[in-house]
Amino acid sequence: MNHFISVNDVLDLKAFVKEALLYKKTPFADKYLGKNRTIGLLFFNASLRTRLSTQRAAQNLGVEVIVMNVGQDGWQLEFQDGAVMNGDKAEHIKEAAAVVGQYCDIVGVRSFPGLTDRDADYSEIVMNQFLKHTGRPIISLESATRHPLQSLTDLITIEELRKVERPKVVLTWAPHVKALPQCVPNSFAEWMNAANVDFVIANPEGYDLAPEFVGNAKVTHNQADAFAGADFIYAKNWSSYEQYGKILNQDPSWMVTMKKMELTNNARFMHCLPVRRNVVVEDAVLDSEHSAVIQQAGNRVWAAQVVIKHLLIKLAREESPFLF
Amino acid sequence: MNHFISVNDVLDLKAFVKEALLYKKTPFADKYLGKNRTIGLLFFNASLRTRLSTQRAAQNLGVEVIVMNVGQDGWQLEFQDGAVMNGDKAEHIKEAAAVVGQYCDIVGVRSFPGLTDRDADYSEIVMNQFLKHTGRPIISLESATRHPLQSLTDLITIEELRKVERPKVVLTWAPHVKALPQCVPNSFAEWMNAANVDFVIANPEGYDLAPEFVGNAKVTHNQADAFAGADFIYAKNWSSYEQYGKILNQDPSWMVTMKKMELTNNARFMHCLPVRRNVVVEDAVLDSEHSAVIQQAGNRVWAAQVVIKHLLIKLAREESPFLF
Amino acid sequence: MNHFISVNDVLDLKAFVKEALLYKKTPFADKYLGKNRTIGLLFFNASLRTRLSTQRAAQNLGVEVIVMNVGQDGWQLEFQDGAVMNGDKAEHIKEAAAVVGQYCDIVGVRSFPGLTDRDADYSEIVMNQFLKHTGRPIISLESATRHPLQSLTDLITIEELRKVERPKVVLTWAPHVKALPQCVPNSFAEWMNAANVDFVIANPEGYDLAPEFVGNAKVTHNQADAFAGADFIYAKNWSSYEQYGKILNQDPSWMVTMKKMELTNNARFMHCLPVRRNVVVEDAVLDSEHSAVIQQAGNRVWAAQVVIKHLLIKLAREESPFLF
Repeated sequence: MNHFISVNDVLDLKAFVKEALLYKKTPFADKYLGKNRTIGLLFFNASLRTRLSTQRAAQNLGVEVIVMNVGQDGWQLEFQDGAVMNGDKAEHIKEAAAVVGQYCDIVGVRSFPGLTDRDADYSEIVMNQFLKHTGRPIISLESATRHPLQSLTDLITIEELRKVERPKVVLTWAPHVKALPQCVPNSFAEWMNAANVDFVIANPEGYDLAPEFVGNAKVTHNQADAFAGADFIYAKNWSSYEQYGKILNQDPSWMVTMKKMELTNNARFMHCLPVRRNVVVEDAVLDSEHSAVIQQAGNRVWAAQVVIKHLLIKLAREESPFLF
Repeated sequence: MNHFISVNDVLDLKAFVKEALLYKKTPFADKYLGKNRTIGLLFFNASLRTRLSTQRAAQNLGVEVIVMNVGQDGWQLEFQDGAVMNGDKAEHIKEAAAVVGQYCDIVGVRSFPGLTDRDADYSEIVMNQFLKHTGRPIISLESATRHPLQSLTDLITIEELRKVERPKVVLTWAPHVKALPQCVPNSFAEWMNAANVDFVIANPEGYDLAPEFVGNAKVTHNQADAFAGADFIYAKNWSSYEQYGKILNQDPSWMVTMKKMELTNNARFMHCLPVRRNVVVEDAVLDSEHSAVIQQAGNRVWAAQVVIKHLLIKLAREESPFLF
Repeated sequence: MNHFISVNDVLDLKAFVKEALLYKKTPFADKYLGKNRTIGLLFFNASLRTRLSTQRAAQNLGVEVIVMNVGQDGWQLEFQDGAVMNGDKAEHIKEAAAVVGQYCDIVGVRSFPGLTDRDADYSEIVMNQFLKHTGRPIISLESATRHPLQSLTDLITIEELRKVERPKVVLTWAPHVKALPQCVPNSFAEWMNAANVDFVIANPEGYDLAPEFVGNAKVTHNQADAFAGADFIYAKNWSSYEQYGKILNQDPSWMVTMKKMELTNNARFMHCLPVRRNVVVEDAVLDSEHSAVIQQAGNRVWAAQVVIKHLLIKLAREESPFLF
């Protein structure tokens, strides 16, 4: 593995999930691996789970951590090639990324989409500039269109909780008061399409995800149909891809309720968090045995840890090719 | 010890203070104790001493530290049960606390009172929600009504500096330009009432602390009377408990001066810091041999270290019950 | 070495640079030196390189790091002696510095000038108060008038890249949209004057640096003359010292271009970063083989590491005088 940006960076998905679950049993087994290594975690946006779980994962591997709120602690960055930088951007990503690469062995980056210019967001300018200029393995801590550490966590959690070989997994849109990115549902779809599950997406009209992420998933606009017989309900709001970044619908009837959960095969309820209670999902579901959201959040550590492990191995291989 | 929220969490106060002072002599004696442990320090409010001293204490014990400015680095939190979260709060404390508990072995929380709703503040909503939902030992880094790490430090410092078996300790209100919480004086009173000292509180009318914190202390509105023969003068401003959160008095005659210190038994001057010079206390006192404020602040490390030690032992006992 | 504030703190400059370059080859050779030590890095202003490289340097030496955005994470500080603190400053530097000194073995401080009161800035109030009250070795992470870690890095980079015994080094002013401090050029001049180089400063009229920093350097207002035969071009904007803090000139003809680089002896281009592309220097130069800016930024680690090493040795000597 050279970077961790999407599901395509994982060679053997099944083995990867197994390794993560092994870390859950023996968190400190590879603490020697990170000796004398430093990971830099750069946040252009807010974070709770990603910030804490990635730090913990690195610590479990003996890696030193440097966390930075870019823009807030440092300088506003310019991402356009050829820009005449006479505005409010003090530093170009070309320098910033290369410099960070001088100080850190692995670099994690979180940068949300602007949700105004679809082409700009879907071309992943920020993440691609870091990939191009940092000169180090990059971990996406959520980019404009994907959140792979979350999706890996989701797959780990499904693997832990599934009761059948090939569970029915439903990604359902849910209402929200703000326009949110498509990263989590895009990424979840990408990973579910790569896994051994029966995958269905339920969303209102106008909310279909980008075709490259939907892939072979069944898409329905009827939430009840989707819930029927489901083993996992994964709720998430997102803004429209078609009418990019817009809120077309706040229909509360799409909220996940206990009544709807009764349509399922006693499904487990999942959400990436943070979740707005009684808007996205009612209290009764989150406070019931259906809910797997805390276990799911806890698994973020093992997801991050298996990713950092593979990148540490890559670094060790480059430095000592004869050892491998 | 299961948590560290108030003096009631300490089984043997005298032994606890002794252990802290032993750490001052041999700071790294228990460095093995924190191996593979991570403490999360969550700040809803500003901090200098608590932030740095608790980090240092953890490092002395070999514990990894994750610091987070909640709300600023992460999401605004909702604390009300049953809330329909369609406003500016993106995450409920139920999830946030439980999630942090997944990543950290011990969790420290600082959250100041709002000073507008006395019942809300004195019911300690934030701290109690963390206690209820985190699933880990909690350390108060200052809550709505208490600041126990400060009070433990104060007791350690008094133990170090006292010249008589049972010193006279005076907590005196002092003027200030802003409405401040009652946490420090509340907590100081609670700890002094539990210790072997002659404890007096001096404050203007309308500034009596809550009865449950005053306890058996002598309360006087005459500062000079209180200072007479005192061994320790502990100055602090607080806003009114009776007319909750209000400033009733900014009378500069309550400022601690060198002239007033002459009424004492050559008392040491204490303050939790930050202190406004020439408002709370005049320069002459802080810059004299009376002042113990820097030694007092330094002792914050040993207070935090003994607390973290006891919580680490609790964790070790739970994991390996046969070892103890 | 007792502190690291200016070039005057270095006893043997040549040996110091050699030690830094040795760390570049064996970064972890002295990891034992920092055992049980903590460095506190206090930022009153934004930072990318200094923040990350100093953390990495400390980690390479086994030192624990505490980073704090003062003012933002903590309290607004008062720097005036005798102030009646009834305004927005909650804590005096006398207490703040002394308290930080209780928690950290070494303290780094970044504090930019206000650029309105030259006497205040050039008297280095903030840095001097930390020197006076902290009671610990202080490292300047950039003060009102100097940036010694940057200048040491610059000298290291020149030592690495020079092709002649005594290279011609040109510090050239360049245009910018904001009024910037004189710290970097002051400090660079101070260090170049102490090194074995042929040192020239080129700047427009009205932009001469303070005489105590210019020293024996040749100063010219003709940029082309300065570039002729140069081995190193060091570009930097600064605001006027004479008309203090003012922008007198934004003449784009002072921008460093590829055409100007052709006047040189195939010079290497240096800049402390962040740099505004196509304002200070054109893309063509930064993206050419002339540019040494990333290597230069990378050397910040070794500069910080050799400084911290010497301060750690000082601490060890004080504690165990018979060992040395």
